[in-house]
Amino acid sequence: MQNHPIGLMDSGVGGLTVLREIQRLLPTEETVYLGDQGRLPYGPRSPQEVAQFTQQIEAFLERRHQIKLFVIACNTATAAALPALRQRVKIPVVGVIVPGARSAVQATRRHRIGVIATQGTVKSDQYRHQIQALAPGDTVVSLATPDFVKLVEHNDLTSPQAFAAVARGLAPFKHQDIDTLVMGCTHFPLLRAAIQAALGPDVTLVDPGTATAEMVTALLDYAGQANDTGVLHPATVTYTTGDPAQFDTLAQAWLTAPVLPAQPVSLATLEQATLEESSSWKKS
Amino acid sequence: MQNHPIGLMDSGVGGLTVLREIQRLLPTEETVYLGDQGRLPYGPRSPQEVAQFTQQIEAFLERRHQIKLFVIACNTATAAALPALRQRVKIPVVGVIVPGARSAVQATRRHRIGVIATQGTVKSDQYRHQIQALAPGDTVVSLATPDFVKLVEHNDLTSPQAFAAVARGLAPFKHQDIDTLVMGCTHFPLLRAAIQAALGPDVTLVDPGTATAEMVTALLDYAGQANDTGVLHPATVTYTTGDPAQFDTLAQAWLTAPVLPAQPVSLATLEQATLEESSSWKKS
Repeated sequence: MQNHPIGLMDSGVGGLTVLREIQRLLPTEETVYLGDQGRLPYGPRSPQEVAQFTQQIEAFLERRHQIKLFVIACNTATAAALPALRQRVKIPVVGVIVPGARSAVQATRRHRIGVIATQGTVKSDQYRHQIQALAPGDTVVSLATPDFVKLVEHNDLTSPQAFAAVARGLAPFKHQDIDTLVMGCTHFPLLRAAIQAALGPDVTLVDPGTATAEMVTALLDYAGQANDTGVLHPATVTYTTGDPAQFDTLAQAWLTAPVLPAQPVSLATLEQATLEESSSWKKS
Repeated sequence: MQNHPIGLMDSGVGGLTVLREIQRLLPTEETVYLGDQGRLPYGPRSPQEVAQFTQQIEAFLERRHQIKLFVIACNTATAAALPALRQRVKIPVVGVIVPGARSAVQATRRHRIGVIATQGTVKSDQYRHQIQALAPGDTVVSLATPDFVKLVEHNDLTSPQAFAAVARGLAPFKHQDIDTLVMGCTHFPLLRAAIQAALGPDVTLVDPGTATAEMVTALLDYAGQANDTGVLHPATVTYTTGDPAQFDTLAQAWLTAPVLPAQPVSLATLEQATLEESSSWKKS
C-alpha cells in the first residue's frame, strides 16, 4: 500500500499548516485532507465528542481512500483521540503533540516553555505532560487563546487589528520569562508574524507541524512505505463539512503545492462512517 | 523497556559520528556502542560475512544490555545486513542508508548527487537504489574511497597530507557537476573540512548520521519508548574488539557527551553470541 495517500484531518483549515510541511518534506506523497468546519471549533467540546468525530473522519478516509497513514493535524483532537484511535486501527496514527513537545525540549535554552492552544488542549495538559516526560526540569506555562482560531479562519493574519488582538492575547506571558513558545494549535503558525512581533525576537517559536512531518517521513522510510512512483507534487484531495468556497480560498492562499477544489461531505455521511477492517503494513 | 539503552555498532570508530548525533538530539537516552576494530575494515569483505558479524554484535548487545533499539552505524553493514536482521529480531533496527538517501533527495537542487563510500557499500548500489526510489530522475555518481577510512582511524583529519589525500581521492568528481555529496561511510563526516575544501563551498555535504538520529527520535517518540528518567547525558558504555586505548583516544577527542573507557571483547565472545529470545515493544 506504499503508494496510497496519507490522510490528514483538522477541525478546519489549521491542519493545512501540517499538510504544507508534509508536501515540502515528502513531495511525491499523495495526500487527502478533511476539514471538519461544519463542527468547528473543537476546542470547547468534550474529549469524548472530539474523539468520536476523529474516529469518524479516519474511518471515512480509510474506506474511501485506503489511506496508509493518518495524521491528526489538530492539537485538540490529538489530545482527545490519539491513544484510543491507535488501538482501533491498524495503520499508523500520528498526532502533533509529541513531536511538538520534542521540538520544544530541543529548542529551549533556559528551560521555560510557553504553550498557546485551545481550551481543550490546555485542559488536557498533554504538552506539559509530554515535555516533562522528556525533560522533568522544564517549566511549562500554558495559555488558552481560542480567539486566534477565528482570526485564522477569517484569513485575517497580518492586519493591524490582528497584530493588536494577538498582542492582547499573549499579554499574560509578559513576566513569565519564556524563551520558547509552542504554537499548540495548527491554526497558529499562520499568525507567526504577529506572535513573533508580540513576544520579541528572543523567543523561539515552535511549529509542531514541522516535527510531525519529520515523524511521518521517518515512519514511512523506516517501514519502506514511502511513495515510489516518482511523480512530484500530486494534487491534494480535500473535503470539508463546511463551505467549500471558503475552504478553497484559504487553501489556495496558504499552500504552494497543488490542491483540488474541496468536495463537500455531509455530517450524516461522517456519522455513518465505520471501519469494518483496517489494513496494516507488512513488516519490511 | 523504554529506559533501556540504544545499541550502536560499527566496524570501528566511524559510528561515533552517529552516536554524537544521537547524544545531541536525545540527551537523556542511555547508549552502548561496539566498535569491531578487530575485524576492520568491513568494506572489502563479502556481504555474507558482514551480515554474520552484524548479527553477532546485535545478539551480544541485546543479551548483555537488553537494548531497546539497534542502530547499524555503518554503511557497509547496513547494506549487507539490515533486511535479514530486521526479520530476525523484534526490536527496531535502524540503518544509515535510507535516512542518508532521504537527506540527499531533500538537499539536491540540480538533481546530481555524489556518493563516497567503501567498496562494499558502492558494490551494493544501495544509495542509488534508495535515492532513485524516492526521486527516479536524480543522477547518482558513486565512488569508493576506502583510503579515507584509514585517515580517520589514525585520527589524521586536518593535516596538509590528509587534505591532499582527500583532494586526490575526490578528483574523479571534477567534471561530474554534482551539487550534493553523501558521506556514505560513518567515518567520513570527521573529514568534513577536507572534503568541503576539495569540492568547494557550492556542494552540500550530507551526513546520514543526522537523519539517522532523527529517525531514531521519531521511532521512540511515536511508540512512547523515549527515556523518561530525566537524567541528562548518561555516559555511553563502549566495547571494542581492537585496542581499547586507541578507541578511547578517538572517542574522547570526537564526542562531547561523557563516554566510559572501552571494554575489550574477544572475537570468540562475539562468535558465540546468539539470541534466544528477542524482546519487542508493546503497542502503545
